[in-house]
Amino acid sequence: MAHTAELIAVGTELLLGNVANLDAQILSEGLSALGINVYYHTVVGDNPERLSAALETARRRSDIILTTGGLGPTYDDLTKQTICRVFGRELELHQDIVDTLRDMFARSFHKPMTENNIQQAMLPVGCTVFDNPIGTAPGCAFCEGGVHVLMLPGPPHECEFMFRRHAVPYLKGLSGDVIVSHDLRIFGMGESEVEQILRERMKSLTNPTLAPYAKRSEMLLRCTAKAATEEEAEAMLAPVMEEVRGILGDVIYGVDVGSLEEVCMARLKERSLTFATAESCTGGMIAQRITELSGASAVFRGGVVSYWSEVKADVLRVPRQLLDAYGAVSEPVAKAMAEGARAVTGADIGLSVTGVAGPDKDERGNEVGTVFVGLAAPDGVWCKALSYGAKRRDRIRGNASNVAFDLLRRYLTGLPL
Amino acid sequence: MAHTAELIAVGTELLLGNVANLDAQILSEGLSALGINVYYHTVVGDNPERLSAALETARRRSDIILTTGGLGPTYDDLTKQTICRVFGRELELHQDIVDTLRDMFARSFHKPMTENNIQQAMLPVGCTVFDNPIGTAPGCAFCEGGVHVLMLPGPPHECEFMFRRHAVPYLKGLSGDVIVSHDLRIFGMGESEVEQILRERMKSLTNPTLAPYAKRSEMLLRCTAKAATEEEAEAMLAPVMEEVRGILGDVIYGVDVGSLEEVCMARLKERSLTFATAESCTGGMIAQRITELSGASAVFRGGVVSYWSEVKADVLRVPRQLLDAYGAVSEPVAKAMAEGARAVTGADIGLSVTGVAGPDKDERGNEVGTVFVGLAAPDGVWCKALSYGAKRRDRIRGNASNVAFDLLRRYLTGLPL
Repeated sequence: MAHTAELIAVGTELLLGNVANLDAQILSEGLSALGINVYYHTVVGDNPERLSAALETARRRSDIILTTGGLGPTYDDLTKQTICRVFGRELELHQDIVDTLRDMFARSFHKPMTENNIQQAMLPVGCTVFDNPIGTAPGCAFCEGGVHVLMLPGPPHECEFMFRRHAVPYLKGLSGDVIVSHDLRIFGMGESEVEQILRERMKSLTNPTLAPYAKRSEMLLRCTAKAATEEEAEAMLAPVMEEVRGILGDVIYGVDVGSLEEVCMARLKERSLTFATAESCTGGMIAQRITELSGASAVFRGGVVSYWSEVKADVLRVPRQLLDAYGAVSEPVAKAMAEGARAVTGADIGLSVTGVAGPDKDERGNEVGTVFVGLAAPDGVWCKALSYGAKRRDRIRGNASNVAFDLLRRYLTGLPL
Repeated sequence: MAHTAELIAVGTELLLGNVANLDAQILSEGLSALGINVYYHTVVGDNPERLSAALETARRRSDIILTTGGLGPTYDDLTKQTICRVFGRELELHQDIVDTLRDMFARSFHKPMTENNIQQAMLPVGCTVFDNPIGTAPGCAFCEGGVHVLMLPGPPHECEFMFRRHAVPYLKGLSGDVIVSHDLRIFGMGESEVEQILRERMKSLTNPTLAPYAKRSEMLLRCTAKAATEEEAEAMLAPVMEEVRGILGDVIYGVDVGSLEEVCMARLKERSLTFATAESCTGGMIAQRITELSGASAVFRGGVVSYWSEVKADVLRVPRQLLDAYGAVSEPVAKAMAEGARAVTGADIGLSVTGVAGPDKDERGNEVGTVFVGLAAPDGVWCKALSYGAKRRDRIRGNASNVAFDLLRRYLTGLPL
C-alpha cells in the first residue's frame, strides 16, 4: 500500500519568521527517499485549537503524520497533550525517562532538574518511545485508526537525529516500495531551454519521472523511479538517464554531485593538480566556494583578489602596458591574471575573472555584465568573454564564478573550451 | 481591523525536501513587522486539486493569503490558474509584460524568448501587477469577497524583493495605523545573553515592542511601534532605543544597517581609508563579503587567499621563520599576514584570518575552531584569538569573518580592540 504522509510543525517562532522550517526539509527528503509521498506541510503556532484543527484535517487525508516541535518542558509545549486529545489517548509518566533526565541535569548541566521537565516524561499510553540522547525531549509514535502519528523534537539537529535513528526504522516497517533518485546536474543551459527540449518526454514519463529544478544560476534534472527493490528501480532509471545524456550532452557536468566546484576538486585530485585564482569582480567568491569544501587544500593553493589595478600589477605581475592598453576588463588582462595566479602561487592552473559587476560601467565604458574568465595551464591560456546585459550584481558574480568552475571542469575533462 | 494572514507555498521541490521554505520565513518576519498575525503556513505540491483545497481552507479562516511559487513558465507552474478558478476570476494577457520579457531575453540572455514564457504575462483580470525587475515572473494581488490574495515568486531573493517593493505598500494600504520598526544590530553578544538581560523589559513592553532575532552568527533587536502617524511612532521608539543602547553599549554596531561590512565600508569612506585582506581558513569570504557591496572599490584594494603556507611566505611575505617556529595558525603569523596584506597592496589597514576550519586538527595539533584574526594599521598591530570548540566548518568560517569585520569596525570607531 502506498503511504501518504504530512508534516505539522508546531511553533510560534516559525510563524514570526524567527527561524525557517528546516525540519520540514530534513523530513521531506528522508520520507521521499523511503518512497513515502508527502502532500502537505503545515505550520501552526503554540496554540492547541489550531493544532487540533490541523490534526483533524491531516488524519482525514494522510495515513502518516509527523509532528515537529512542542515536546519541551515549557508551558507552551502542547503537542503531546493536543495529539492525545484529538486521537483519544491518555498520557502516562515514564519513570525511567524522569530518572534519565535527572541524571542528565546533574551530569551535564551541573544543576538539579526543575520540575517542569517532568512533562517531557509524559507520553501517550502504548506508544513506541523514541529516546533522545542529544537533547532532553524524547519523541514517540503510535497508530490509531490506521493513522500513524510520529512526534519529533523541534531543534533541527535533534529532529534529524531522531528521524534517522527511530522514525526511519519505524516507517520502513510500514512500506513495501523503494524510491531511487538521481540528479543530473547541468550548467550552460537554462531551465526553460531544457524544459523546451524535454517537455514532451517529461510529460510522457510517469515512472520513472523526470523533473527540472533551478539552482543558483544552474539547474538539475531529477530522475526518480519507484519499484519493489533498489535494483529494479536502478534498472528503470538507467535508460532514461542515458537518453537524457544523449540529448543534452556535455552540459551535464555530473550525476548526484554537489556542485561544479566539487566536480573540479575531484578531477584535480585524480590528476594530482593544483589551482590558484585571480579574482577581480567576483572578489574572492571562487576561492570562497572551493574552500567551503573540506579537503580543498589538496587542490587549491590560494589566490589573489586584485580589486584595484595596482594589485593586478604589483601582486599578480600583470604587465602595466596591458592594463594601460586594454584596461582591466579585457581578454589580455584576464589571461595575464590567470598566468599571474599560476606564477605567484606555483599552482598548475590559474583561473581568473575580471569584469564589471555594476552598478555602473567602468571608466572605459564597458557595460555592466561584461566579464572575462581566463584559464592558464601548462599547455595554453584560454579566455571566455561573457556579457550578461544589465543584471544584478550578485547574479553577475555568481554566474561568473560558475563559468570559471565550468571552464576548469571542461579543461580537466578534455572538453572544448 | 486586525488582519489575519496565512502563507501557501506551492512547489513539489519543497515536499521532496530539495529546498527549505525560506520564503515563509522572509514573509512571516515581514508580516510580523507590519503587525499582521500569521496563523498558518501550508506547503502543497504543483498539484491543482491540493492547491485548490488549501486555498478554500485559507479563505475561510484568513483575510490575507500570500502564495509563493508556481508563477514561472513551465507546465507545472499552476498557481495563477488555480487561484483564478477558486476565486472566480479570468486570466488576461498583459502585452506590455510580453514585450518586457522578449526584450529581457534579447538583451540579457541573447536569444529569442521561448513561447512558454508568455504564460508569465497572463494575470488575473483587475489585479494589481507586481513587476519583477530581477526575474521573469511578475506577481500580483487582488481582493475578492474581502480576502486579499497576493502572489509572489518562489525564488527567495525574488520573493523578498517583490514583498518589500510591492506587497508591503499594498498591505500598509489596508491598515489605518502606521507601523515603524528599527533594527538594532548586535555582534559579540548571543541571543540568550541579550534575552537574559532584557527579558523583563521585553515582556513589559506592548507598544513599542522589542523582539530578538538570531542572524548568521549575530543577532538583532527589532523595536516596533504602531501609531496614527510616522512621527508619533518614531517618538515612541526613541526612548526605548536609547534605553537599550544604554544597557547593551558598543555591541550594538548599527541601526537599520545591512551588515557589519556595510558599517565598515561607511566608516572607511568617512575617513578616506582603504583596507586589504589576507585570508587562510575563511578562504576569500571576507573579500567576497565586502565586494558584494557596490562601491566597495573605494575602500577595498584587494587581498590574498593564502591557503598554502608557501603563498603566505611568497605572496604575503610572512617570514618563513615565523611559519616554522609558530605554525600557520598562530598569533605571530596572523599579525604578519595582516601586515603583509597592507604592504603588498598599499592599503592603510590589513585584516587577516588564519585558523582551523576542520574537519581535522592541523598538523601542529591545533583544534578545529582555533582561529586568529589580525589587524594591522599605521598605529599598531592587533590580534584576537578565538576558539569555537568543535563546530561546523561553515559556522567557523562565517563567525571568523564576522569577528574580522567587527575588529575593523572597532578600530575605525575608536573602541577597545
